[in-house]
Amino acid sequence: MASALQKPPCAPVPKKIGVVLFPTFQTLDVAGPLDAFQWLSNYVPDLKLYLLANTLDPVSTKFSETVFPGSHTSDFGLSIVPTHTFDNAPQDIDVLFVPGGYGVMACGAAGDKVLNPVRAFIKERFPKVMYLLTVCTGSGLVAQTGVLDGYKATSNKAAWDWVTKQSQKVNWQPVARWTVDGKKDKGDRVDKVWTSSGVQAGMDMALAWITRVYQSYNPKPEDLGTTIATTEEYVRDLDPSRDPFAKKLCRGWD
Amino acid sequence: MASALQKPPCAPVPKKIGVVLFPTFQTLDVAGPLDAFQWLSNYVPDLKLYLLANTLDPVSTKFSETVFPGSHTSDFGLSIVPTHTFDNAPQDIDVLFVPGGYGVMACGAAGDKVLNPVRAFIKERFPKVMYLLTVCTGSGLVAQTGVLDGYKATSNKAAWDWVTKQSQKVNWQPVARWTVDGKKDKGDRVDKVWTSSGVQAGMDMALAWITRVYQSYNPKPEDLGTTIATTEEYVRDLDPSRDPFAKKLCRGWD
Repeated sequence: MASALQKPPCAPVPKKIGVVLFPTFQTLDVAGPLDAFQWLSNYVPDLKLYLLANTLDPVSTKFSETVFPGSHTSDFGLSIVPTHTFDNAPQDIDVLFVPGGYGVMACGAAGDKVLNPVRAFIKERFPKVMYLLTVCTGSGLVAQTGVLDGYKATSNKAAWDWVTKQSQKVNWQPVARWTVDGKKDKGDRVDKVWTSSGVQAGMDMALAWITRVYQSYNPKPEDLGTTIATTEEYVRDLDPSRDPFAKKLCRGWD
Repeated sequence: MASALQKPPCAPVPKKIGVVLFPTFQTLDVAGPLDAFQWLSNYVPDLKLYLLANTLDPVSTKFSETVFPGSHTSDFGLSIVPTHTFDNAPQDIDVLFVPGGYGVMACGAAGDKVLNPVRAFIKERFPKVMYLLTVCTGSGLVAQTGVLDGYKATSNKAAWDWVTKQSQKVNWQPVARWTVDGKKDKGDRVDKVWTSSGVQAGMDMALAWITRVYQSYNPKPEDLGTTIATTEEYVRDLDPSRDPFAKKLCRGWD
């Protein structure tokens, strides 16, 4: 087990990570980065995880009849237990993490019932958090709230058509493993907004973000993202521009 | 969404996947393969997932005081909801999936209380299932039951010392992304036992296993594991011998 903090950083670092959950989220969009964050918690004292949803009921990855009535549904999936609702989430969450998955496309009355509270939470919290991270079509869900307008962002290329229609004011990057952007004129840090392509890109983005934000906590001289990836036995990709799936742009879901 | 079965295979295929959960399992050991299995369920009709644990209480990845009393603990982690207990798991489960994580090393009275039912379930079910799949230190937990004796197996290289001490009768493979073995003299299929190294190797093994077992369900001419990996935007590794972490053998946990 790695030793804890040796050299505390000078600037405040984010300690409270809030993960937004909704029905039919993509398992790996959440689990990939969270596995890395859990290793990170061995290095950063008092790192906290908040799993946030409409209610405290377990949230399933199943292709749900609740959000896609009359459509393809499946009984295959797993359920994660939220720790807080959007209503009682701590006010001082530092990091807003938004995964993707088919659930972001829930529409009609059933979709609005499920996603409107998610959108409201993202819109209200975005100005207050230090960082926003999205994986896959999570950026499409965030774009619906308008808070990504003017920022660089990317997403899963297989769902590119749908995602980019959620707001035409986002500076969508069609070839990117992940993007980093911020607006000094809005008082943001210049690396406030991190968005990634599909599941593996989300893991690589998370490791890059970990290094950017928490490097001073690494007792080893190497990159902290690499320290954690090695412990996971994960071969990370350090290059945010390497996007082998970009050629599938505008293809729509399979 | 991919269309369902076009060409049913001649031989029976496994439809019921049972995943063994225990406190302080590794998030990605479970979530990586399960994300692929969930995509697979779009191709294979009636594919079922059973999440199995001692009780129906959610099972956490947190470094738990329950299994490591007096040791390092953490409040950081997520919890997955089991669908069945070991006692009421369906008798006709076809696939036994065993993840790793620090929880496999739980010892003493607290560890035995948690893991003995897991071990008993694995030991009882192994002769009955069509396939056993392990990720990371999951092979160490299975080795404790004796059922891996005489089979080839591998594991996370950072935990190699601990894993290989669980049974010296296993044919441990120190350099392997994953292994496949079976014993015709025991009535097994020759590819019954699949074991992998750390988290990413587990994802690659799962995709290789999917191709081996379910290829006839792919409406596309390409490898089914690749079809699914592309949908996930995951760059898979097809080579079971490529093990970049093997040089860390016998290193012990960080």
